[in-house]
Order: sequence, then C-alpha cells, then structure tokens
Amino acid sequence: MLPIRLAFAQTNPIVGDFAGNLEQIKSAALEASRTGIDLVIFGELALCGYPLGDLSYRRDIVASSEAALTELVGFSASIPNLTLLVGFARIASHENPAQSSKAIAHNSAAVIRGGVLLGRYDKQLLPNYDVFDDWRNFVPGDQELVIDVAGARVGIKICEDIWGEQKNPFGQDVDLIAVLNGSPYTFSKEAKRREAAKEYAAGVPIAYANLCGGQDELVFDGGSFVLDAAGAEIYRAGFAEGLFEAIEGELQTLTENEKIYQVLVCGLRDYLKKTRQSKLVLGLSGGIDSALCAAIAAAAIGPENVVGVAMPSRYSSDHSVQDAIAVAANLGIEFRTIPIEPAHSAFEKMLTLSPLAEENLQARLRAVILMGISNSEGRLLLTTGNKSEVAVGYSTIYGDSAGGFAPIKDLLKTDVWRISRYVNERAGKELIPLSSIEKPPSAELRPGQLDQDSLPDYEILDGIIRILIEQNQTTTQAIAAGYPEDLVLKTDSMIRAAEWKRSQGAIGTKLSEVSFGSGRRVPITTRFEAR
Amino acid sequence: MLPIRLAFAQTNPIVGDFAGNLEQIKSAALEASRTGIDLVIFGELALCGYPLGDLSYRRDIVASSEAALTELVGFSASIPNLTLLVGFARIASHENPAQSSKAIAHNSAAVIRGGVLLGRYDKQLLPNYDVFDDWRNFVPGDQELVIDVAGARVGIKICEDIWGEQKNPFGQDVDLIAVLNGSPYTFSKEAKRREAAKEYAAGVPIAYANLCGGQDELVFDGGSFVLDAAGAEIYRAGFAEGLFEAIEGELQTLTENEKIYQVLVCGLRDYLKKTRQSKLVLGLSGGIDSALCAAIAAAAIGPENVVGVAMPSRYSSDHSVQDAIAVAANLGIEFRTIPIEPAHSAFEKMLTLSPLAEENLQARLRAVILMGISNSEGRLLLTTGNKSEVAVGYSTIYGDSAGGFAPIKDLLKTDVWRISRYVNERAGKELIPLSSIEKPPSAELRPGQLDQDSLPDYEILDGIIRILIEQNQTTTQAIAAGYPEDLVLKTDSMIRAAEWKRSQGAIGTKLSEVSFGSGRRVPITTRFEAR
Repeated sequence: MLPIRLAFAQTNPIVGDFAGNLEQIKSAALEASRTGIDLVIFGELALCGYPLGDLSYRRDIVASSEAALTELVGFSASIPNLTLLVGFARIASHENPAQSSKAIAHNSAAVIRGGVLLGRYDKQLLPNYDVFDDWRNFVPGDQELVIDVAGARVGIKICEDIWGEQKNPFGQDVDLIAVLNGSPYTFSKEAKRREAAKEYAAGVPIAYANLCGGQDELVFDGGSFVLDAAGAEIYRAGFAEGLFEAIEGELQTLTENEKIYQVLVCGLRDYLKKTRQSKLVLGLSGGIDSALCAAIAAAAIGPENVVGVAMPSRYSSDHSVQDAIAVAANLGIEFRTIPIEPAHSAFEKMLTLSPLAEENLQARLRAVILMGISNSEGRLLLTTGNKSEVAVGYSTIYGDSAGGFAPIKDLLKTDVWRISRYVNERAGKELIPLSSIEKPPSAELRPGQLDQDSLPDYEILDGIIRILIEQNQTTTQAIAAGYPEDLVLKTDSMIRAAEWKRSQGAIGTKLSEVSFGSGRRVPITTRFEAR
Repeated sequence: MLPIRLAFAQTNPIVGDFAGNLEQIKSAALEASRTGIDLVIFGELALCGYPLGDLSYRRDIVASSEAALTELVGFSASIPNLTLLVGFARIASHENPAQSSKAIAHNSAAVIRGGVLLGRYDKQLLPNYDVFDDWRNFVPGDQELVIDVAGARVGIKICEDIWGEQKNPFGQDVDLIAVLNGSPYTFSKEAKRREAAKEYAAGVPIAYANLCGGQDELVFDGGSFVLDAAGAEIYRAGFAEGLFEAIEGELQTLTENEKIYQVLVCGLRDYLKKTRQSKLVLGLSGGIDSALCAAIAAAAIGPENVVGVAMPSRYSSDHSVQDAIAVAANLGIEFRTIPIEPAHSAFEKMLTLSPLAEENLQARLRAVILMGISNSEGRLLLTTGNKSEVAVGYSTIYGDSAGGFAPIKDLLKTDVWRISRYVNERAGKELIPLSSIEKPPSAELRPGQLDQDSLPDYEILDGIIRILIEQNQTTTQAIAAGYPEDLVLKTDSMIRAAEWKRSQGAIGTKLSEVSFGSGRRVPITTRFEAR
C-alpha cells in the first residue's frame, strides 16, 4: 500500500554535537542506501539536537548547522538513489513578522538526493507551551514543499505543524505526508500522536518520524509510524535507536509499565552518556524511592558502576539498613555504610537547633557525604525524590534533594509503588525488596516518624496533584472531583510554598504533561489564595 | 503643554494578591481624585502582578482578576471625575489565532470612570524573549482603543506594543498616547525606553507608566515619564512607589551607581516582604562579595535583622576574620563566629576525599551551619556569589551557592568592586572594609589559594563574559575584540560546564540584558565546540 520504500532513522543527537550527529545521519543513510530504500526520514533538528533553546540565537551554532548540512549534501552524491529528509537549523532571511522575539533561525527540513539540496521546508507552527520554546527560538516559515520521490509526491511537515487548526494543505495532490518530529514521551502520548496525524492527514497516508533518546529532562521515544489513507496504523517502529524500514503490518508495542521503565532508564543513561559521565552514587535509605532509583541506575549504566551508600543515624531502624543491604545485593551494586553519628554529634556541639532544623541537619550531613564521594570519585549523585514529595516540598534542600539528576522526580508515589512491583515482575525475582514496597513510608529523621504524620494519604495526595498540577485545574475542581476540601487547600498551599525549593531542584526525566521542569513556569513569589 | 492633568500610579503588586493589589490601586485613585487629576495611569497587570507566568492558564486566577476589576469599577462611582487606566487579565473569547500556545487570557487595560467600564484594550505585541513569556501566556488583541478624557483624545497601548516594527497607529488623531508597562530594570534601560517611546509616538505626546518594586528576579524601577510632541522628556517620576503627577519640567534622576544600588536593595527587600520573611543570615568570609551582600541586606531589612556568621577553617587567614568582624561592626549587624574545625575533623575520619573534594567539603560544612541557623531562626540565607563566579562555576554546589536569594548574582566581579566603593562613598564612611576591596580574592580553601590560580584576571574574564553571555556573541567575536584566544575558549568551556550548577542556583536580582535566570534558557547537555 505504501507508494515507495520508506525508512525512519531514529537517531539520538546531542545538542550542538554537529560532528557526532552528522556521523549518525551518514551511517543511517548508508544503511538505507544498501537496502534499497527510496526515502529515509530523520527527526526534527536531527543535525543540531533538540531542543536547542537560546543556543539558536548564536550565529556560530546556526552556521555550524548549515555547514554540517552542506557536508551531508556532498556525502549524498555517493548514494544517488536515496532521498534524505533531515532536520536542521538555518539562518532566516527575515525576522519573525508577526510578533516580538529575538529569533534569527528557521527550524527546517532539507531534502537531499544525489549531491543536491532539492528543497528546504521551514516549520510554520511554532509551539509555545510546556517545554517548547520554538516561537521564542525560531522564525516561522510560510512556504509549502512537495517533493517527488521515486514517482511519489511527498508533502513535508515538521512536528507542531500537524497539531494546529489548519489541516493537510496538500489535499489529495500528494501520495504521502512526511513529518519530522522531536516529540518527547509523556503518558499515553503515542495514541495522541496517531490521533493528531490521522486528523491532519485527512485521507492521505502519513509517515511520522521521531528522534530517539534522552536530552536533559526529555526522552524522545522513537515509535515512528505510518498511517494509511484511512488513518489505520500500518507500521510502528520501536523505542530504539537506528534505521527502521516501514514494513506493512509490523507494529512494535510495549506495555505502559514497560514503556515508563524504559523511558526512565533511557533518560538517565543518555544524560550520563551525553555529559560524559559513567559512574553513579546514591544514598540507600531502605525506602522504596532510593531502591527504585538504584534499579534504574543499575539498568542504565551497569551495576558495577553504581555505589549505594547507607548512612544510618541514631534514628534509623534496623529494617532500613537491612532493606538497603538487600537492594544493593539484589542489584549487584557496590554497597557502603557510613554512619552519620560522628558528624551529627560534632554539629550538635557547634549549633543549637530547633527540632525541624535538627531533622534537616541529618539529611544535609548525608548530602555532604554523598557529594564528597561524588567529587572524589567522579560519580554523579542521584537524588531520589518522587513527584509527590517534590510537589509539596517534603524534602530537605541541600539534603536529600542534592544531586545532579532526579530519575523519578516526575513519578508520583503511588506510581513509584506500581513501577517498583513491575521492576520485580519483569526481572522475575525480587530486585526491590518487598518490605521496601510494603512498609509505611518514613524519612526516619525522628523516632517513629511516618510520612503520613505530615502529608495526606498518598492515594489522596497524588489525586490532588494530578488535578492541580498535571491538569492545571482549580481547587474548586479538585473538591468537585471528590477530594476533601481541607486536604485540597492544604496541598495547594504546600505546592505554592515549595516553589523556591523546586526552583533549585535537579532536572529529571519528564513523564507527565506537566512535570516540575522547564515546562512549568510559575513565579516563586505569589500570594494567590484559591478560595 | 500637557492636554490634561495626568498622574502615574507606580504601584507594587504581588502576583496573585488581588485584594492587596486592588487596595493599592484604590488608594492611588483616591489620592489622584483629591488632587483634581483627570487621568491616572497604572502599570501593566497592576491588578494581578507581573509576570504571572503559567498562572495565567488557571481560570480561577483570571476570574479573580475580572472580579477585582468589577469591584474597582464599582468603587470608581465615588470618584466620578477621575479616569483610571488599569492593567488586568481577562479571559479571551478566542484562542491565539496565529500560533500554537495554551493561553486563555488577554493582557489588558481597562478604562474606568464614574462607575462605568468605558473600554478595554488587549495587548497586541506579545514579547517572547529574555524573561518575557507573554506569547506563551496570553492571547494577543487586535483592536485599537481611543478614549476621551476631559476633552483630550487618548490612545492606549501596553508595553511591548511600542517596541515593534509598527509605529503609532493613531497618527495625529490623538492628543496623547498612554502606555501601561511592566518594564524591569536593566543597565541603561531608561534611555532605551525613552528612545522607543519617541520613535513610536511619531510626533504625538506619550505618557509611559511603569510598575515599581521587586518580583522574584525582576525589579520594576518606576521612572514613568512623559515626552512632548517633539519627543523631549518633560517629566520623569523617580524610582519609588506611589502617585506622581506629571508636572512639566520635573525630572527625577539617579546616577547609574545609585540606581544599581537601589535596584539591588529593592530586589532583596521586596523578595523578603512578598514572601513574608523579615530576617536574614549570611556567611561573612571577610571577602568583598559577602561584605557587599551584607551591606545590601542591612539596607533592605535593617541591620538589626541581619546575622553575619564567620566560619573560619584551619586555612582561614587572620585578616579574613578581622575583615568579617569589621564589616559587621560597620553595618551594625549581629556577628557570630562558628569555627568549622570540629565538623571538618569529624568528616575527615568518616571519608577519604580528593584534594578538590576536601575544598568543597569545607564550603558544604559552612552551608550546613548557615542552613541550620536559617531553619532554626526563620532567617532567609543569602548566597553571595557574583556573576563572574556563577558564569564559570567557581563555587561549591550545596556549599557557598546554598541560599534562597542571591543579591549580586548578576553583578560581575569588577562591578562588585565598583559598587562596593560606591556604597562607602554614599555612606560617607567605610562600611565595606577597604582591605576587603583591595586584597586579592581568595576562597581560602587551601593554604595560599587565590582566585587567579584558577581563573583569568577578572578584568579579562568579565569582558569575555559580557561578550559571550550578555551580548550572545561568539568566541570568534570575543577574540576579535582583543581577548586572548586561550582564555576565551577556556571561559566558553567553563561556562558550558557550569550549566548544571546554575540550573540549581538561587534566584537573584536581574541587572543585565542577559542574566543567569529565567531569561536565559539553554540546555544543560550540550557539546558545541566553539572552534
């Protein structure tokens, strides 16, 4: 049914690494050429990495993108039968005509064949919500592009172009619409992409190409796909780097839990790889959050590169240390124990602290230990807070929130439990100790302390956070959804009060539509009272 | 020459504090009415606070803005001869027609007189650069508004509207253009505003109203002004909250140093006030950065509310402790000394650290002490790093970078010296010890250590940072400007490597066109090599 032989190149670019990104593109092109593919579609800005952010303002970076494209055009002379459709940035000939930005470049796609640059298309619809700053960073295009590939007419679009009010501008005059995307994973995003593509294409086959890999907080999850003229999915690539020929009937799928697990592992693995780091350290409290982070760490970089440190205090329970030992043993990571008592007593003699400050002190002494290991051994420190804690500020700043990457910062506590059970299920054995999953959560900063002394029950708390944060709804709507008024208002107030802590938090993999990252931009100083 | 009696209300709203913001507006309106003013112009979004950020997506917040406006309209019945021109947000009747955002509201101005809402104007040109996210957060308007005030015809505009390609759409059909602004201070911004207003008005008198006060990293510096038909400035209000009648010939001015000083004090003072905090703590190293921060702190909140803590280590010099004592005494702030040796030795027995990690340890032990005081006594901790350090990452994360506010994070080291001398000059006495200003900078984390062991000379470093960061130029341009190639490339590389630390840094007052804050958005992970 497909009019041509088509492949997707799910490359994993690093922002600004023009040589490396070009190498990936050439390699995919050679493979496609060897197998007789007519058209290979790369992801959005595959040559530059995405998102570029304000680096798009720098003329040397945009010039490097253009130079790398020129090199690719030259290279393509050696594979004359293959058409390449590649995302890159180029200097715009005019400023953004409609509105006020400082952008100088287009977010573009180049059509290359046989040593010739056959055409360029500039992205028209520039998203300006969530993590997307395209309107800030790029100048919109206003010209359509249709190319001929092996006798088929192909209309070109880039990512957000297909998500707007305007639908397929080519009508039935094309045989295929090809879309280059830089589409990060969020929950259930795959179905939304297919729906958007079907609506947009309006009766024409459409090929949707995505990047694959982590870039800071984002994970591009591949999953390039083809819909036929009726909007039925006839091919879907997996969540993997590489070249994928669109073979009708091949649909690679993952369960939701497996997808989330792989996204979490990929986000951490690529952050390490792309920042040239290969070793990790994290604190192991015996609790579920650090246990899940350790499992993700071991999967991302290999257990031999992970150190887990138990740092018991006078308030730590025996079962906590036992659970920490167990998770390290189950995963095969290195385990160390460093009791904090000597430092704890030293500070007690130096300072007079309030009870709450005394709790924070313990968390900060642990951060001093972990950062000492981090700095001495060149190990990135993971911070293990989950989204429920990050939302309400249930953490010690410069204490347990210290770290360069936060693997589960966008996973609510109830999801932490679910994914932890799944980690064991997929391994077919207990990696994360069942007791860590089943015991009542506690920070163990004072005798007998439990999270639920300070916080609503996690089932309730997470439901409220979903409404207020992930759906941008109001406290009135949360109450109407059945949550107790006092808990809704308390949660809303805690979220606001934690804004300053979050503003200093580590980045971590985005999973939800509204994560605590660059896609959520609210003032630290605000006094809105919801009711 | 002014066609009507005109006043500016330089209010200081808090984002989301509709009751408080409305109170300020009513109070200014009453005062204007008592003195026979015809028209009072408030700042942009004076009713909501600016910038709202993604809070503009929340229907309860926009509804509160509309409700507060309705209340103000009712109130205005009691002052029938005064026309109010007030910034507020309102639900848009349509989505942003041109591009892809999630905005639901207009950034608007209401014209109110005698209990009647006479008209509304919606901002048309929505900035999308630097700290400004208006295009993300608002729907642009497309209708002009001209009102009659005491026989004069007044055309309405909001902030960015006058900075675009399009100039005065009213021609000579109006007697005055009134512009509501939320314009934050940056170096030499006043002259740029006047130039933009003159260009825009094209032969018509123009009245430019600004907010006044700090909101997170921004300081709105008042300075509302009037230009006559020839573009000559005939009135300028000062950098102060309150109502200011435009009296021809009155021009309130400040020197650049005084303006910077006042902006720094205002930024900290309003952050404290608006987050309901009233006490500060900071480390006093004896160096210039902490001394200047202490001076700003004492001016912002009163010396009686500031605690300075010297935390000498085995490597601290006598002169450092003496300089710390001197600055505390000169400013009249409370002074404490807490040697870190007991904790330092305790950790040495607990951990084996590399030499660099050992330096970082000392900085982190100080942070533990300062945060202990912060938590126990309810004192906001100031972090005292300057822009040169923040740029190249010359700091210890969770150590000296710990704190809730960074007063001088946008002041380069060479400017720190200049402003410190100015602080003494304006006081007519030595507040900041001359020896702190004149000695070679040192972190004193190992014997004999000097900043210049690790960094280029600050004159050179700051020049390179100005070019690469503040002017968004390239390393080639910095070298062409005369800076040594090796130092330019080293600085560029250090800036990139410090991105992850900056992403976890405290907010601080913006002074330059590109500060390290929400106005600079670059990936943490990037591998661009400039040459």
